[in-house]
Formats: sequence, C-alpha cells, structure tokens
Amino acid sequence: MSAKLILLRHGESEWNAKNLFTGWVDVDINDKGVAEAKRGAGLLKSEALLPDVVHTSVLRRAIHTAYLALDGCDRHWVPVRRSWRLNERHYGNLQGKNKAETLAAYGEEKFMLWRRSYDTPPPALDADNEYTQFNDDRYAFLPPEARPQTECLKDVVIRMLPYWYDSIVPDLRDGKTVLVVAHGNSLRALVKHLDGISDADIAGLNIPTGIPLLYELDADLRPITAGGRYLDPEAAKAAIEAVKNQGKK
Amino acid sequence: MSAKLILLRHGESEWNAKNLFTGWVDVDINDKGVAEAKRGAGLLKSEALLPDVVHTSVLRRAIHTAYLALDGCDRHWVPVRRSWRLNERHYGNLQGKNKAETLAAYGEEKFMLWRRSYDTPPPALDADNEYTQFNDDRYAFLPPEARPQTECLKDVVIRMLPYWYDSIVPDLRDGKTVLVVAHGNSLRALVKHLDGISDADIAGLNIPTGIPLLYELDADLRPITAGGRYLDPEAAKAAIEAVKNQGKK
Repeated sequence: MSAKLILLRHGESEWNAKNLFTGWVDVDINDKGVAEAKRGAGLLKSEALLPDVVHTSVLRRAIHTAYLALDGCDRHWVPVRRSWRLNERHYGNLQGKNKAETLAAYGEEKFMLWRRSYDTPPPALDADNEYTQFNDDRYAFLPPEARPQTECLKDVVIRMLPYWYDSIVPDLRDGKTVLVVAHGNSLRALVKHLDGISDADIAGLNIPTGIPLLYELDADLRPITAGGRYLDPEAAKAAIEAVKNQGKK
Repeated sequence: MSAKLILLRHGESEWNAKNLFTGWVDVDINDKGVAEAKRGAGLLKSEALLPDVVHTSVLRRAIHTAYLALDGCDRHWVPVRRSWRLNERHYGNLQGKNKAETLAAYGEEKFMLWRRSYDTPPPALDADNEYTQFNDDRYAFLPPEARPQTECLKDVVIRMLPYWYDSIVPDLRDGKTVLVVAHGNSLRALVKHLDGISDADIAGLNIPTGIPLLYELDADLRPITAGGRYLDPEAAKAAIEAVKNQGKK
C-alpha cells in the first residue's frame, strides 16, 4: 500500500495580491484565497482524498486555508499539528517590500538571485524593521540564535527536513493520508527533497495556491510518480505561469 | 501561581436556533454563533487572557467556534487537541427532534427528566435513526461497546473526566493558559467536577454560548473562586435565563 501525502499551498493572501514580499509576516488570505481554499476542499472531496491528519505552519494564511480545506471535505475533526518549521521562507529585510519596486531598485540580477537562487539569502532583517516577528509569543521558545533573520531556500530545506522526518513521516508510516498546508517555499523545499531536484533545477519550480498536489509514496517514501499529481492539472498549469511572472507587474 | 482554565461553549448553532435536540449531530454554528465566537475572542483579547493551547470536541460547532475565538485574539497558531470525550451529551433518540414538540408529546415530567436529571438518559438511538453517527470515520476507532447510544449527564462526567486528567490537567500543570471549547453538557460535567456541585444541584446550572468562563485554579486544581468568572457577567446572566426557558417556546 502506498502512503498518501497531499500538499496544499495557502490561498491568495492580502500581500500576494499587493505583490509584497511576505515571508514570516502573518497576513491572512483574502476573499480570493478563501474561495481557493474552498475549491481545494471540493477537489479533495470529489476524489475522496480525505486527510487523517493535517500539518500546518504557524502562520495565519496556512492555518485559515487548512481550516477551510478540512471543513469543506468534512475532516474538520482530524488531529492538527503545527510547526514554525513549515513557515514560509523568511525574506529578511525584503519583508513588507513591493516586488516590482524591489526589482526596479536593485535590478533583475539581484532580484532573481534573492527570489530564486538556492543559497543566496536576501539582506537580513534590520533591527528596526517593523516586520520583525520576534516580539511574538509563538516564537518566544526559540533561543535567539535559532530565529532566522533571513533565509535562502537551502536554509528552508535545512530547517524543514527535521519536521518532515520527525512528525510527518511517522504519520505516513502509520498509513495515514497526510495533508500539509504550507507556503510556496516550504513546499518547494519539500518537493525538492521528495523528487530529488537539483539545487539548480529547483529555481524553475513553482507551486500554485489552493490546488492540492498529491504524492503517492513507495515503501522508501519516494514518489511513485515524479512531481506528484495536481488534482486540477489545467488550473495548476495556468497558475504556475502566473507565479513565474510575479514581480514583472 | 494559579493555573488558568477558560471554558467556552460554542456559539449558537443552526439547531439551537431551531430548538432541536442536537447531541452528536454535527451541525455548524449559524451567523449569530459566528458573531458570538468573535465577541468571545474580543473578551479574551481585552483581558489579555491568551490561550497557550486549545482543547475541543470533534464536533464542527466547537471546532468552528475555537477557530474564530483563537483567530480573533491572535492565538490561531497554538497547539490544538480534540477528543470525542468533550462532545456534547449524546441525546439518543431525541437527536433531531424539536424540543417543544418533545415536551408536548411526552409531558413536562419526562421532558425535564431527560433534559436535566443526572442519571436518567433519554431513549437510546433507534437502529434506523437517521442521526446515528457511527457510520462516521471520526468514531471508527471506537469499538462498538464504547459508542454511546444515549447519555445522561452522569455518563458524560464518566467519559469526560479521563480526558480532563490525562490531557487537560497536564497542560495546566505546565503553567499553560488552557482554552476548552465544548458544549452545554460536557462543560456542565466539567464545572460539576471543578466546583463539586451535587448531583441534584447541577440540574439548575446552565452555561451560555459564546461567553468565556475563567477559572483560576489552586495547586490542587480547585477553583479559587467557586463558579469561576464570566468575562461578561451581565450577558452571561441574561443568557442563562434564556437557556432555562428553552423548550417552553
């Protein structure tokens, strides 16, 4: 029997719509995001892909999406696990900044390096940046040295994988259908790991919001079909194109 | 330092509004219930009573209320625990029946016995009752003999207390502020235990929807003030009167 893993990127957020770098800033999904989450629920229900457990980040846009996705397929009652290790990539001092303005100010090379290079993080959070998260109770347990000030995708892979092995894998080993509701970059980090995508090739991979991505995994927890399967492949294809063009508005 | 326990009965449900016995039937809160849950969140926030963990039943009206209550006081990210042991009392074959019609059909004595006696359960669920829950995945792990077919309040106390001792008490012992979002009768069962209310006197105790009830507990987890404190005592008083008059519509 194969293990079933469903990945879901949160619906459109208030800042996705405004074309701002969000990272760990805790913005909610907007009305379009709510509709996307409900549509995702419908896709799960129509394929009878019913989660036995959900894992989310500690950010509202993922938590809200997870609530709606589960409620809409009548799995609101399943166990819930949350971890900062599933958070979006920390965008450092770019958090709160407009993507198009950042592109204009720093030029395409730097912009693309910060957005898509595997191991170059954006500038670290300034001490006076209004979008710091570390006055927040939810991260209070983390000692200062464990609080990211900026992250590249490689950093996300490093901090996400322990959660994969310690919390998600045991649920898959128990035969559960596992839903992970997270973010563009924490899911890219997980997909990179699952599909064994190279550091160079991961730059070209985008994950659309609100469309469940199903991975069936073999006994070694490797994908039976590389790249998994979006429950709505046409919508996923169109949305992936749109993500690629972000920052070019 | 005292331990802080906050009890919250779900906001008005679709069936509260219709004056139907609900029990384990999984109806959602209605618009008024949504407003009540959000108002409850505001009361928590204004007193800076911020939950570190939430415990809910596995019923949608409690889960939805908990989501809104936590979201509204920016504690959407706290750990979530759910158990059928916090469910509403199972109302047996009365589930889905109108309270006023039941009163008219069976007379006040039986009606009050079923609603408020400590140890007389309503008639058990008929095999063909459309409101059985035991075709439902969320209870599939329970062997048949552990699936209630009807419950009196005493039964609720018996099945709720193990969860109190095994799951809620450890969180209180850890110094956490604990939010429990549950139901009229599972919360009456807990309050009976906390305040040492007699089997006779518990009949007169009603808990209003959507108003957080704070218990500060001493080192033996006994209430420092008997009965706790509603965060909006005036609204609680008015609502308690309204609950008493249910079935008399």
